[in-house]
Amino acid sequence: MYERQETTTPSRHPERATYDEDVVHAVLDEALLAHVGFVAKERPQVLPLLFVRVGSTVYLHSSTGARPARMAARRGGIELCVEVTIVDALVLARSAFNHSANYRSVVAHGRATLVGSPTEKDAVLVALMDKLVPGRSTDARLPDENELRQTAVLALPLDEVGAKIRAGDPSDDEDDLGLPVWAGLWPIVTSWAPPQPSADLRPGISMPDYLQPSGAGRSGGLLDGTGALPT
Amino acid sequence: MYERQETTTPSRHPERATYDEDVVHAVLDEALLAHVGFVAKERPQVLPLLFVRVGSTVYLHSSTGARPARMAARRGGIELCVEVTIVDALVLARSAFNHSANYRSVVAHGRATLVGSPTEKDAVLVALMDKLVPGRSTDARLPDENELRQTAVLALPLDEVGAKIRAGDPSDDEDDLGLPVWAGLWPIVTSWAPPQPSADLRPGISMPDYLQPSGAGRSGGLLDGTGALPT
Repeated sequence: MYERQETTTPSRHPERATYDEDVVHAVLDEALLAHVGFVAKERPQVLPLLFVRVGSTVYLHSSTGARPARMAARRGGIELCVEVTIVDALVLARSAFNHSANYRSVVAHGRATLVGSPTEKDAVLVALMDKLVPGRSTDARLPDENELRQTAVLALPLDEVGAKIRAGDPSDDEDDLGLPVWAGLWPIVTSWAPPQPSADLRPGISMPDYLQPSGAGRSGGLLDGTGALPT
Repeated sequence: MYERQETTTPSRHPERATYDEDVVHAVLDEALLAHVGFVAKERPQVLPLLFVRVGSTVYLHSSTGARPARMAARRGGIELCVEVTIVDALVLARSAFNHSANYRSVVAHGRATLVGSPTEKDAVLVALMDKLVPGRSTDARLPDENELRQTAVLALPLDEVGAKIRAGDPSDDEDDLGLPVWAGLWPIVTSWAPPQPSADLRPGISMPDYLQPSGAGRSGGLLDGTGALPT
């Protein structure tokens, strides 16, 4: 259980919040992109970054040339807000006002620091690749020293973190239930299409098992064996 | 064409940037969620919000009780960064380093203000509903005065805005092209599953035409007639 804090208590619908570690981790493990907020020149900034959770740390993948990495390098760290959201359905209520979306989101705040150790960076990059495409790290050429130097990994410990979830049917006002308006959910499904070989792929290289529809190693969410998100 | 500015020139891969109005608008019109960055108590904050673009303005849907709306009310506006990203594919290169994602993103900066006029607010809510579910606004009960008062709409003019797009095959180093590693794209498809009626739906209310797979009014992206995103 993560500790609920004032900064992780939503101002709207606090009853949708949860601090359950398994729930927070499941959302982080299913989502591809983190939306990373920081402040530069006193202005808000948001960047989409690939990321992987390992234990209670979110590792954000970036480049040493990217702004948050440069700021973290100069200042020994950078204050971030990391937001991750999966939309499961549109919620169609009888009234426009009660329309909503079913979603699972996580917001984490804190000070992120650059991963300095090449060994740790290496391990994070392998974990990231295997999150996105389980099995891929056994296949792709791993980074050399120069590539590792160009890659920035920002580590954000999950101390100030919570999830927020809306699920289930529309919540209409009692007075609206008799209206002749259809109400329900319109689920959104995210799935993988068949992989498309690169135009310059050398003849004789076949698609690896881990990319086959029946491929092992895929579990949970986007990477589910069925190729579809649970909705 | 939007004007390129220093703040809308990416520090990484500036060659992926475009300021073409049609491209910027298409990404905004296809995406469901905006990731909205602001600064509160000197800390970065990011919230996912539903939104609709009308002309050269992004309208963010919120509640008068939500923090950015309260801040905008107190200060006559709020400095925002709005980020919207659609992921089209994972890009599997021969080297771990050249792995990437194909995506289309938009980032806009600027001062958002609360929409005060009930007429304008009404029009935005109808536009938002018809973006999410084309045709829905002819069906649902529209907001009454009290509901309109509880709804906050933040308007962000698109002055400082750009899109960033990666498309196409992996870009491997020349030296890696001979490696016996499969390379290509793994497309991600977002589609709609069949609508699920609410458990308390009054008998005899059938699913409206605009929710049928062949429903009219859906065009482009998530709302495409085929029920699938172009990838």
